[in-house]
Order: sequence, then C-alpha cells, then structure tokens
Amino acid sequence: MAETKPNISFIGLGAMGFGMATNLVKRGYKVTGFDVWKPTLEKFRAAGGNIANTPVEAVKDNNYCVCMVATAQQAQAVLIDGENPALSALPKGAVLLLCSTVPCAYVQNLERQLSELGRGDIRLIDSPVSGGAARAADGTLSIMAGGSDDAIEKGRFLLQVMSDPKKLYIVNGGVGAGSNMKMCHQVLAANQILAASEGLGFATQLGLDPHSASQEILRSDAWAWMFENRLPRMLDPEFKPVASALTIILKDTGIITSEARRSGFSTPMTSTAEQVYFSGLGRGYGPDDDSSLIRLYTEGKGKVGPVKGVAESDESKLKLVVALLKGIYLCSAAETIAFASRCNLDLDQVFDLCINAAGGSTMFQTVGPEIIKLCRGQPLSIGDGEGFKELVQQLQEAVEEAQRLKTPVYLGSQALILAQLAAQLASEATDHVSRAIIAKVWGL
Amino acid sequence: MAETKPNISFIGLGAMGFGMATNLVKRGYKVTGFDVWKPTLEKFRAAGGNIANTPVEAVKDNNYCVCMVATAQQAQAVLIDGENPALSALPKGAVLLLCSTVPCAYVQNLERQLSELGRGDIRLIDSPVSGGAARAADGTLSIMAGGSDDAIEKGRFLLQVMSDPKKLYIVNGGVGAGSNMKMCHQVLAANQILAASEGLGFATQLGLDPHSASQEILRSDAWAWMFENRLPRMLDPEFKPVASALTIILKDTGIITSEARRSGFSTPMTSTAEQVYFSGLGRGYGPDDDSSLIRLYTEGKGKVGPVKGVAESDESKLKLVVALLKGIYLCSAAETIAFASRCNLDLDQVFDLCINAAGGSTMFQTVGPEIIKLCRGQPLSIGDGEGFKELVQQLQEAVEEAQRLKTPVYLGSQALILAQLAAQLASEATDHVSRAIIAKVWGL
Repeated sequence: MAETKPNISFIGLGAMGFGMATNLVKRGYKVTGFDVWKPTLEKFRAAGGNIANTPVEAVKDNNYCVCMVATAQQAQAVLIDGENPALSALPKGAVLLLCSTVPCAYVQNLERQLSELGRGDIRLIDSPVSGGAARAADGTLSIMAGGSDDAIEKGRFLLQVMSDPKKLYIVNGGVGAGSNMKMCHQVLAANQILAASEGLGFATQLGLDPHSASQEILRSDAWAWMFENRLPRMLDPEFKPVASALTIILKDTGIITSEARRSGFSTPMTSTAEQVYFSGLGRGYGPDDDSSLIRLYTEGKGKVGPVKGVAESDESKLKLVVALLKGIYLCSAAETIAFASRCNLDLDQVFDLCINAAGGSTMFQTVGPEIIKLCRGQPLSIGDGEGFKELVQQLQEAVEEAQRLKTPVYLGSQALILAQLAAQLASEATDHVSRAIIAKVWGL
Repeated sequence: MAETKPNISFIGLGAMGFGMATNLVKRGYKVTGFDVWKPTLEKFRAAGGNIANTPVEAVKDNNYCVCMVATAQQAQAVLIDGENPALSALPKGAVLLLCSTVPCAYVQNLERQLSELGRGDIRLIDSPVSGGAARAADGTLSIMAGGSDDAIEKGRFLLQVMSDPKKLYIVNGGVGAGSNMKMCHQVLAANQILAASEGLGFATQLGLDPHSASQEILRSDAWAWMFENRLPRMLDPEFKPVASALTIILKDTGIITSEARRSGFSTPMTSTAEQVYFSGLGRGYGPDDDSSLIRLYTEGKGKVGPVKGVAESDESKLKLVVALLKGIYLCSAAETIAFASRCNLDLDQVFDLCINAAGGSTMFQTVGPEIIKLCRGQPLSIGDGEGFKELVQQLQEAVEEAQRLKTPVYLGSQALILAQLAAQLASEATDHVSRAIIAKVWGL
C-alpha cells in the first residue's frame, strides 16, 4: 500500500524554483505553485502542477511550503509583508523551507519575526541550494540545511527528494547556519565564475586558440567546476543560452562582502570580483550569462597598440594561464575556509560540500586540507607546503606577462598581492610559513 | 660683460620636451633639437631653435645634452643602439641629462654601458621631471636629479634653468636615485589620477551635481593636486584638451609595479589602479586625457536597474565622497613612503618633494610625517593617530553606499581591504597600532 504523499506549496517558480517544483510533481507530489509572473504559472500547470493566485492560496491547508524567491526582500514580501502573505494561511506546525540564498542575518531575523508574530509553531528550515537549473529539475541539488532538530526531522524527506543523497548537508547551528554555509561556498563561486572569464580571456590575449587551450586547462591542475560549466557559453559568440545571469552572482557576492564587513572580516578576493561585476553591470551585461564577462578581458585585443609578451610556445603560454588560475583558486580557497572558520562552521563539512559542489576545483581539493589544519592551529605534515613558492613565482610571471600585453587580470593581480603580503609578513621564508601567513592575511 | 652661454642639444621634442627646449631658447641658449617627428622640428625652428636630422648631428660639439624621449627603449635607441646614435658624437666629458621617466634599473644600466663602451667620461645625470607641459615651458618644473658630484656640479646651471628654484631636488645616491624618487612620487600620481575619476564618478552616481560637489571637494580635507588639475577636463563633455594621455600614466604605473615586483615589494594600491588603466586602454581610451576615465565609473548610471542608497542630503553624500578619497589618499601615501623607504631614499626629501609636486594632497601633508616616523621606528606623538578609526569607518560607509548603488570603487575598495587587514593584524586596537600596521602591510 503506497504511503500518501503530503501536499506541498511552492513559492517562486524562477529558473531554479520551476525545476525544483516540477521535480516534486514528477516524484508524485501534489504541488501548488505561486509566482508573480503569470506565464510561468501556466507553464507550471502544463507540467502537472496546481497553481495559486496568491501566497495565501498556495499555502492554505498544505503542511509543507518551499520558498524559492530571488532575494530576502522578496521572501519577506511573500511570507509576511506583501499582499496576501503566506504567513496568514500557513497551517499550524507547517514546515517552511526557505531555499533562497539570503544573508544569515535575514533568515535569523525571519525566525525571530515568526516568534514575535505568534507563529513560533512554524518549523523553519534555512536551506539554500546549489547546483544550477538542470540539477534542480533532476532533484540532485546540493542543499545546506540548518534548523531545529524537530524541523529537520519533519522536513528531511522533502530535502531528500530535492537533493543528491551525497549532497544533502545538515549543518549544525540551527537557522542561519545553512545560509552561512551557502555564503562561504559562494566565495568560491564568486571568484571562480570571474576567474573563468579572466583565465580564458588571458589565454586569448596570449594568442592561444580558446577552444584547444580550454581543453588543456580542463585536463590541468587548474580544473574548476565553474570553468568547465561556463566554457560552452564563453565559447559561444553570443554567450548563450543564459544559464545564470550576472545579476545572480552579483547578488550572492554582495551578501558575502556585506556580511564579511558586518563581522569585521576582510574578503580581498571577493571584493575585487565584486568591483569587476559592477563594471560589467554598468556596461549593461546584467541580464546576460555571467560567462559573457570574458568580454571585459578580450575587448582590447589587437587594439591597444603594439604589445609583445615573452612567452612564445603554446606550452609556455598555457603554463601562464594555468598559473594565473591556480593562484586565484589558492587565494579563493584560503578566503573561503578562513571565512567559514570565522562563521564557526564545521570545516570538514565545508570541505566535503565544496569539493562536491559548483565551487569545486583541483586546487581546493589539494590545498583545502592544509588550510583547514592551519585554521585549527594543527601542524602541517612534511611536504604539505610543497610547491607554494613555485606557484607564487609562476603567478608572478603570469601577471607580468599580462602587463606586457596590457590586459587586465584583476583577480590574478589581487592573488599575487596577497601572496606577496604573505611572504613579507613571514618571519622565515619557508613554504610552510608563507602558506600559514596566507591564512593569517584573513585574520586567523 | 655677459658670460657666453654654452650650446645645448635637446633630443625628444614631445609635449614636455618641446616646452623645456623652447624655455632654454627663451633664456638665451643656443639649442639644437632632434625629434623623429619632423613637423615638431619645424615648429621648434619657428620657435628659435636649431634643428638636427640625427642624434649625432644634434650633439656634435655640444657639451650639454638633454634627452627627453618617452621611454627607456627610445633613450637606448637615440643614445646607443639606433641609427646615428648620440654616443658616437658626444664630446669628451659632455654632460648628459636623461630627463625621461625610466626605471632606475635602466639608467643604472646606461651608466654601466657608457663605462663598458669606453665613455665613462660622459657626465650622466639621472634627472626625471614632473609638473606638466605648462611648467616645462615656464622653466618651473620639479626635477629630481641624481649623479656624481662632478656631474651635478657641471650640470647644475642647466637643472636650474629648467626648474623652479624650490623644486630642484639633488637626490643622494647617484645615478638611479633620481629615477627612484620620481617613481615613488608617481605612486601618488598613479593612484590620485584615477582617484579623481573614481571620486567624481561616485559623486555623480550619488546624484550630486558634479560642478558644485567638486568645488566642495576642493575645499575639503580631500583636496589633491591631481583632482584640482584634472577637474576641468573631467567636467568637459569631451574631456578636452588632452593634457596627459592615459598611456602616459600607464607607462609610469608599469615602472612602479614592475620595479616593486623586482624588489619583492607589494604595491596593492598601484596594482589595482593599473588593472583599471588596462581596462580603459582596452576600451580604446589610451590616447584620451586620463581624466576621461571617469567614464568607467559613470557609464552605468541610471541603467543598472533600481538602486537606492541610504545617504539622502547632499551633505551626507558629499561626506561619503570625501571619505572615499581620503581613504585612497591615506593608503597611497603609505604605499609611497613605504616604497621610498625600501628604495633607501631620504624620506624628508620625499615628503618635501611630494607635497610640492603633482602628487600633493592634504592627506599626504597630514599623515606623511607620521608614516615617516613609523618607517624610522620612531614613536608617534600623542594625537598623531587621531581620527584613523573614524576615517576607516567612514571609508567603509562609502564603499557600502557604492555597493548599494551598484557602482565600482576599485581604489576605495582596495583601501578598505588594506585598512581591514591592518586592523586584523593589530594586536591592540589603538589608533596608533592600526596605523603602524598600515605601514607594516608594506613590509616595514
């Protein structure tokens, strides 16, 4: 005898939400969807969903609600402050999954509001997701969920049906911890999305063929999930299809830098990326796929007057691109783990999540365990620091070549600055000390 | 009885060189000029100069030669490696003033080459200049001159006739020291030229009227020579007339960052400025006046979707602009003095030169003496550090407001990062310690 599946309300049917909601429909759940954009509702009905005209209508009599709107402002509106907000109709004891990427401070504030409004009965789960629209539709997202034990217990089946079993992370620390975990992961995303454009843009400026160079990069130590994922769109003359708009990563980037400032933490890599994203926005690239930022790096090619680099063979040019990317990935790994440590997250869980999610990179996998040891004040093993000085030397050569070619490498330049500061601050010029100081740059 | 004035050869009649050479003509010297661009030669003849068709012809029988070409490569060509180079005809014991802005390493290498080529008799003076075309033509430049005592003695009258008597700096340290002094001064120039665009661009994004806001800025603690100098062109819709092209400051910036890397020194502010200059170059702004970089900061205004800052009154908006600029000037002052210290320059002379040259700013005048004390390991006086924490707090508010307006502030963001790193590294959270650490960021 089949168990009766509970009815679910789903608020926010954008690129991610639509996939998540239709996945629930496919798995046999009766889902009532709401979105402010009517055409999407019709599409959802055609996909087998029920539709509602207001948040109230969507959540009425449903004990489970997933909220997947774009921002904290939208969440606040559909749940509490807007017209016909969900809160007024959510059944007693309902489970509410907030899957949007929002600041930790917002979701904690939401928990407080529920309590102050006499709705402490609602089982709020702070459960941002990662993985993109395709995995949303497949029900194989990465999910980072924080909440009370009771809420997690009641909502676990729903988290499971939306996620890859190996990529569901129940984060210790209650409401807020899930958002912090997502935020720290997004440090990697914010840097590595831009790094894809910077790396392939640099390859182009060096005169490499972007098609073959990118295949070499994917086979190298400079592999990163973001590079592989953005590659087809970077190579498309129109940067199509739009899979993730610049405005999306810019929103997440803003959460990182403002939350970091709030806690007196410095994010030199992410702050640099954010400035470049603002420049892209100013150019009108906001609605375009974020892979299209490669334009900011290639537009001057052949137009800046006579330039000549020193790298001549394709092999030596490729080595510079790999060094640039590895330097960026090293520093974004350090920034991520240092920030996670500041947020009191479980660093082993951070590591496991990051290597399996969109922030994954070969460098993160290699240096992550060492940086975690440093954060914990544990001694490194012999050989842990090997290659660091060489990596910094090669990064410097890449930045110097970019200078000869008169082309910007914002992230690579910032990574080199951080590595230089690390070296200057080191009392002994050993590899271990240098890398330890890289962690120290982030206040550890 | 009038003393007979010696004949002078002048190689390189560009914007600066033409003014310098015609000033010599006006002062009664017989000057023979050479330039690869023929129309300029005709103009020089019309201004009373003699003209030569080759470097050899220019220097023949003249005991004094001024070389004012644009780059080290050009200097090497006209003096030694090119067609009919000056070296083959320079009279024995001739005084050679290299006034171009070149890396210290180049002019020291030139001294070595002269010796190796058997022309150690030539009295080389490493004497870069600052002040712009108008002061070049008036004979009121700032000049930073290094060389042997004998060379300086013989060439002093020529240095004097080209410079303001209060702005002729004989720099200790021989050939190379003049170029190092110029380079360190250009740290201020590189940052403050871009800061002018960033500051006025930010004011525009805040909705301030750029005309009245800029007048307020000039009256504030955020006064800087560069801001005042670039202002009329920033306000001109066509950024005209072209007084100093982007390519000029970009060349000097490249000297700073590559010399810094060569000596293992980090220039986080200048390296950031350089990346933005490369972006400007990529946009095709290379030949335009550098004040036109304000376009990189204003192009998105009104086009990035709904944005709303928190500053409402013009007064509070202006305060943010002033804080942004002061933060940038503080960090560029620290970078300048730290680099000068690393180059073993006389820091009192550096200070005196900078406050009287194009790098001058109210902030430099205020914080320079303190940073110099820190570089020397001297204790600060009570009150020296006052206002630092407040300044950093206000800088942070400015960066946050820029984030709300979704507009880039590359230098302001980097200045905030450095101030944050300083605060993190401080063992005691006193103003003095924080500022001491700002110096430490630069390895002192």
